[in-house]
Amino acid sequence: MRSRLAAENAPQPAARPIIRVGIIGATGYVGGELIRLLQRHPNVRIVGLQARGREADPVSAVHPHLARTGLVLDSSLPEADAVFLALPHGAAAALVPDLVAKGVRVIDLGPDFRLRAAADYPRWYGFEHPAPELLAAAVYGLPELHRAELAALADAQVAIVGSPGCFPTATLLALAPLARAGLIADLVVDAKTGVSGAGRDPRPELTYSEVNESVRAYGIGGHRHVAEMEQELAWLSPTADANPGANGVDFLPNLVPMTRGILAACHVRPTRPLTSPELRELYDQAYRDEPFVEVSDTPVATGQTLGSNFCRVHVSFDERTGRILAIGVEDNLVKGAAGQAVQAFNIVFGLPEITGLEQLPLAP
Amino acid sequence: MRSRLAAENAPQPAARPIIRVGIIGATGYVGGELIRLLQRHPNVRIVGLQARGREADPVSAVHPHLARTGLVLDSSLPEADAVFLALPHGAAAALVPDLVAKGVRVIDLGPDFRLRAAADYPRWYGFEHPAPELLAAAVYGLPELHRAELAALADAQVAIVGSPGCFPTATLLALAPLARAGLIADLVVDAKTGVSGAGRDPRPELTYSEVNESVRAYGIGGHRHVAEMEQELAWLSPTADANPGANGVDFLPNLVPMTRGILAACHVRPTRPLTSPELRELYDQAYRDEPFVEVSDTPVATGQTLGSNFCRVHVSFDERTGRILAIGVEDNLVKGAAGQAVQAFNIVFGLPEITGLEQLPLAP
Amino acid sequence: MRSRLAAENAPQPAARPIIRVGIIGATGYVGGELIRLLQRHPNVRIVGLQARGREADPVSAVHPHLARTGLVLDSSLPEADAVFLALPHGAAAALVPDLVAKGVRVIDLGPDFRLRAAADYPRWYGFEHPAPELLAAAVYGLPELHRAELAALADAQVAIVGSPGCFPTATLLALAPLARAGLIADLVVDAKTGVSGAGRDPRPELTYSEVNESVRAYGIGGHRHVAEMEQELAWLSPTADANPGANGVDFLPNLVPMTRGILAACHVRPTRPLTSPELRELYDQAYRDEPFVEVSDTPVATGQTLGSNFCRVHVSFDERTGRILAIGVEDNLVKGAAGQAVQAFNIVFGLPEITGLEQLPLAP
Amino acid sequence: MRSRLAAENAPQPAARPIIRVGIIGATGYVGGELIRLLQRHPNVRIVGLQARGREADPVSAVHPHLARTGLVLDSSLPEADAVFLALPHGAAAALVPDLVAKGVRVIDLGPDFRLRAAADYPRWYGFEHPAPELLAAAVYGLPELHRAELAALADAQVAIVGSPGCFPTATLLALAPLARAGLIADLVVDAKTGVSGAGRDPRPELTYSEVNESVRAYGIGGHRHVAEMEQELAWLSPTADANPGANGVDFLPNLVPMTRGILAACHVRPTRPLTSPELRELYDQAYRDEPFVEVSDTPVATGQTLGSNFCRVHVSFDERTGRILAIGVEDNLVKGAAGQAVQAFNIVFGLPEITGLEQLPLAP
Repeated sequence: MRSRLAAENAPQPAARPIIRVGIIGATGYVGGELIRLLQRHPNVRIVGLQARGREADPVSAVHPHLARTGLVLDSSLPEADAVFLALPHGAAAALVPDLVAKGVRVIDLGPDFRLRAAADYPRWYGFEHPAPELLAAAVYGLPELHRAELAALADAQVAIVGSPGCFPTATLLALAPLARAGLIADLVVDAKTGVSGAGRDPRPELTYSEVNESVRAYGIGGHRHVAEMEQELAWLSPTADANPGANGVDFLPNLVPMTRGILAACHVRPTRPLTSPELRELYDQAYRDEPFVEVSDTPVATGQTLGSNFCRVHVSFDERTGRILAIGVEDNLVKGAAGQAVQAFNIVFGLPEITGLEQLPLAP
Repeated sequence: MRSRLAAENAPQPAARPIIRVGIIGATGYVGGELIRLLQRHPNVRIVGLQARGREADPVSAVHPHLARTGLVLDSSLPEADAVFLALPHGAAAALVPDLVAKGVRVIDLGPDFRLRAAADYPRWYGFEHPAPELLAAAVYGLPELHRAELAALADAQVAIVGSPGCFPTATLLALAPLARAGLIADLVVDAKTGVSGAGRDPRPELTYSEVNESVRAYGIGGHRHVAEMEQELAWLSPTADANPGANGVDFLPNLVPMTRGILAACHVRPTRPLTSPELRELYDQAYRDEPFVEVSDTPVATGQTLGSNFCRVHVSFDERTGRILAIGVEDNLVKGAAGQAVQAFNIVFGLPEITGLEQLPLAP
Repeated sequence: MRSRLAAENAPQPAARPIIRVGIIGATGYVGGELIRLLQRHPNVRIVGLQARGREADPVSAVHPHLARTGLVLDSSLPEADAVFLALPHGAAAALVPDLVAKGVRVIDLGPDFRLRAAADYPRWYGFEHPAPELLAAAVYGLPELHRAELAALADAQVAIVGSPGCFPTATLLALAPLARAGLIADLVVDAKTGVSGAGRDPRPELTYSEVNESVRAYGIGGHRHVAEMEQELAWLSPTADANPGANGVDFLPNLVPMTRGILAACHVRPTRPLTSPELRELYDQAYRDEPFVEVSDTPVATGQTLGSNFCRVHVSFDERTGRILAIGVEDNLVKGAAGQAVQAFNIVFGLPEITGLEQLPLAP
Repeated sequence: MRSRLAAENAPQPAARPIIRVGIIGATGYVGGELIRLLQRHPNVRIVGLQARGREADPVSAVHPHLARTGLVLDSSLPEADAVFLALPHGAAAALVPDLVAKGVRVIDLGPDFRLRAAADYPRWYGFEHPAPELLAAAVYGLPELHRAELAALADAQVAIVGSPGCFPTATLLALAPLARAGLIADLVVDAKTGVSGAGRDPRPELTYSEVNESVRAYGIGGHRHVAEMEQELAWLSPTADANPGANGVDFLPNLVPMTRGILAACHVRPTRPLTSPELRELYDQAYRDEPFVEVSDTPVATGQTLGSNFCRVHVSFDERTGRILAIGVEDNLVKGAAGQAVQAFNIVFGLPEITGLEQLPLAP
């Protein structure tokens, strides 16, 4: 059966470029999503799945839903053109120098290459970055903000994408048009996330019985994703004065009983009075040509993005309070992780940006 | 069988005061919770359950879980000492004048007697209040804020309790110590609620398939509960200048996939620098003697309150952002509705405040 | 944005056959799934979506997650080569005669063309079939059982597929190898389903609060899907004596708190002693070449099929009780509805059977 | 605050007997439920909570919802009249001999004293029972079946209650009237359970992401609870011939995405034709005087029992298939564990059976 599916899925005879791809850290949820997306990507051949302590294990041992791919897990990778890493913080930084030395294009889904300032790693992640010289070369892989820099990696000697965190993706896409226009005077971001973002390790507070029928805030006093938010908000700001993260982004994540999905509600006090038509025009202009950002006139829900690479954004101005509310929703494992990484990969390799990401959301 | 349970539950021969209670609007979720709590209240005899179009229908027809009570639904109420109303807005206002004229103590769980200013009803609820003269007599039934006024209703000619909304309860209990101290310079309230708060009517957006695995914000631009929040924050504020609701409370409710529970996250910019020990002392003093408010050193979760009348509060100061985060969690149908109404009823009738509300939370 | 996505999705210049497809009943959950799958089908152009009372309404009005398709809903359909119907029972039977008279290939996802015996309609569905002469021509659209008959529709004058119900699909795929071998002496089918199978209408018992944290059996005394099960088990049986449905299939569906997924547990008393290796060999032979049936050595879970057209089957023999347990799991809206209909459509139009159905399951 | 609650909860001056109770294994979910129920039991004083490696730890460290009790966990117990044990299998058997030697009444919620035949322990649980001589003295603590034997423990030298498992409770209560009448010719039990029954240990397959939106069967080939079911069905049967468990009970548990609740669907082929009125009369007679078993004319749901000690039963005869369907639902942590144990405790100590168990179910 496997052979039959494979046969029917086989590349058509067109002279399509095929990129050899490896995945390091293939057993987690993000790893599984990378396999799901890349296995159906017309320009990709998955040449290896690396996972500690595995030797020729069928992928179905950890991802039963991917049994049909016939892939196996191994403790090492064969030669590849590109490698995706889905590892805990600190682990990728140790592996990437060797990979880039061999000319491999690297897409790191962890935080090790997201931050420009080496000093941010001890501060936010508790480790000294072992390869600070690579941080300047790495590109923060949010295509809607850094598309040109990602494209420039095509010809670069060192190509590292630091693929964004799940919360920063929804937050930055909801805020970018305001930040670029210098409109954010004060900012509170209150986000709600499904549990899959916490990964696959069985921790006592992540069992079904503990999570179900309960909401709780966590990361109080400073979630690590704040570092990315502050960096990118500063980058987006027209002047240092207009930087909404200058005094520290007030970000609160909440764990809600669902598996996938992030909603980031950004409560913004604007620097000047705005009308609603102005606001809509601003967002329409910003995202008109974006393949994966949808500006919605009606309130958005995380369930409208399940399994897809879309981020949906809703923005409104409240005359009573004088505040703007900008909301972004996404599937945290797709646009918030694996899908976004594939999107950046497409850009780096000069492919149409949506290749392999055309899946529509699953609802209900 | 019913008889056996009844027999063993029967009041002991002590000379315990028995209050005859009726419930109007007994078929909804709040009505069901009132029955659950009052049926086990040692000083209450439920003399009637009123529901439109019902004639001697067993309560199990709408509340199968309450079959054992043997109660019946009828289209009218017999004579009662106290009446609880759980009705859509506008409905109670039409019935209460007659009830109070007969000397009945009224606990209204809808919004009709929560607001002091008659003008707030057309503004927030879209109807002219038919009995504005009663608004001044009514007491906002949050015992932690208005205990003395509730107790004074014992001897009042007209006794109306406007029992608070679910969101204002969690929000005000999280904020009261700060508001009383005039410490709130700027305020964003981002709340998360289970679905039961939307009531029992089958609306398209409330089916399981629509709610499950999705989070969405709603009430954008002004949820009706804002009216109560602004009224009570003004009341709590030491001076008009210090009123955090003066410019409009920025309140955003979010629907999360669970049945019960509210978490209100209050992001506060304080009027002056604070230390964490100051903050804790403030809350400990405020709630030390409260039977139903628990100040927790560790982050709180809605699941810690299920089925109980507790509101749990966690407060912290973030030196990085200079903001206070005050979080309140509750069971929206108990402390956020039926339980709180019974608590106020106890005060009005001079009973120990926790009578009938001693149940510990159910977890997991 | 829509235009950009459309452009990048545009058919490549290959001489690929394009089939014009219409959907009647496009606003329900099954209709939404048909759109999701057919929009990405390389040989399909959706020419119209019919829904009562709609005139040029954007599909996003009912399916926000499908906003990107740019499709519209209308009260009528343009000319089409094939029409999918997703309607309540009785509704398709009234429309299909006209469609087939025009030479349109019909795939009906309701029950109106699943049963061969006209007398079964009044018995199980409460209506007289208006076009009983078409029942003989229709093919029960379970490809694993009726592939050749579906293929024969390619050249038939009248081509009607009665696409199977969600429960019969999982049940029949779990039982077919046993039934064909005449091995079933006695049969109990206990199935568990997510809520989406009940459709989109907001009924009181389907609200989130009623479904969540509760399991209940329903359809006690005879769910309508029993008719299909009995028909197909009889058809599979080698002799009339060996027909396990002869005395009535004992089928019990249970509603569980999830959106998608069906697990059918078939408790079988076999006609003769079996060894486990025999059993495995039987299933491997039966499904070796099936693109969408996976025989699993380890227990299966509905979550392993989400969003995909796979049915996973696990079978075991219990020496202690002498019974066989055969379990089938599927996504009720895909293999149990829209995906299976597309699979049959592919066969009828001579396309590779998996076209447009290559999506891997989504997990977690 | 703690003191205030305690004061208001304090025993009234009546000469109420007070039983000193200890709990061993207080940190799990069943332990938490025992605390919740016993803390509000008017005849109980919890004198100690024993948990390995704890020394004067506040109970809130493991059960935040029970913070108000002010109880502490310790590594040993003080003197007690009764001890409840909630331990993994094998652990209680090692402790109970010493306890009974001291005259303590023991209610064991694990399996160590449920089975009469010592040989069943190595077979089903994989350990040799260290105190087989105590098995004959122990009473299977299902009050509806063994009330008189439980009452007889009041004066017994050795008093051990083997409190039933969660699945056997729902199954046996659904089947007992049929079994006693010798009416069961063939039996399939298909049960659905929430996740809390699996306990509190964080196992990979019990994380939220793995359990949510998925149903799976487990324990295929023989769940340990079968041993109890077979023992008690044999005990209930009027003759050895009529014993439905003689050939092995076919029992299949399914894990569904909810925290609490068990539904046991018992598919019964009767020994002789029955009418529905006969069946109802049989059940009404059996359970008329039972305080915690409700026979319902309408289908039952687990959600109707949440937090309460009720088991609801629905029975029907299907003329089409000739089978009886008997369904039992319960809260697995209350009637399926802690509540039932308190019920048996009440009988052993001569208290009214419902004492401390009067809570009505929580719905929705």
